[in-house]
Amino acid sequence: MTGVVRHRGDYTWEGAPLVAYKEEDGTHFKEVTRQILSSGAPDLFAELRYFEVAPGGHSTLERHEHAHLVVIGRGSGHCLVGAEVRAVTALDAVVVPPLAWHQFRATGAEPLGFFCVVARERDRPQLPSAADLEALSADPAVEAFIRV
Amino acid sequence: MTGVVRHRGDYTWEGAPLVAYKEEDGTHFKEVTRQILSSGAPDLFAELRYFEVAPGGHSTLERHEHAHLVVIGRGSGHCLVGAEVRAVTALDAVVVPPLAWHQFRATGAEPLGFFCVVARERDRPQLPSAADLEALSADPAVEAFIRV
Repeated sequence: MTGVVRHRGDYTWEGAPLVAYKEEDGTHFKEVTRQILSSGAPDLFAELRYFEVAPGGHSTLERHEHAHLVVIGRGSGHCLVGAEVRAVTALDAVVVPPLAWHQFRATGAEPLGFFCVVARERDRPQLPSAADLEALSADPAVEAFIRV
Repeated sequence: MTGVVRHRGDYTWEGAPLVAYKEEDGTHFKEVTRQILSSGAPDLFAELRYFEVAPGGHSTLERHEHAHLVVIGRGSGHCLVGAEVRAVTALDAVVVPPLAWHQFRATGAEPLGFFCVVARERDRPQLPSAADLEALSADPAVEAFIRV
């Protein structure tokens, strides 16, 4: 779809099916939904997605060669980018550079919703190895924050 | 800058200087400011910018080979994408495909603010020729909308 992708007023968009990730043993996220707002557009350089993390939920702790450009759309929470845990709230932007470990958590009472742009051509996410987790956990603030 | 780019609460962001476009004879926009939220990040695939159009103002009527991925962040207004004029309001997304004529206008009493992602490598915008304007004006709704 090109042109206007209308927000319905409830953090869903016309023409963008809402996908609730299935949670089973072995998944690395919790309580996350995704919508691809640029779905159906002709091949573009990038995709525009909207993720929503329910209270208590978190995105996958991961890294990859491709970058993320994020704008928080709703609520508040915390995120890890690289070696730093920061509070985020609606209208903050987050730039996740190549190979930075990152994770978003809805740490408050409300959902954390965010827009995330990624390049159309991109590598698969990497999950942390035991050694990666040990390195990340050298910082107590990071150790306390991450969910795997 | 990478990591969190904090919104100050007034539609400005830390580390993102606000640029008010200079308006002189020969410009094609009116009452527009720009901030580059991904400013200072290492070379990324794309840039994240925030534009704000004051009431009565408009962006340049233009087209280019590169696409735009837009999320309305504040207020409401109207936009032309391709051959269609549509109302937009906060949280609507707008996908501007390659070579689609486009223009944003703050047609209401409040500013129209929007996030816009573009590829880092991109071509220069093209302005409409007299023939382009004549073609666009074949539709009375478009003719009434566009500002040059």
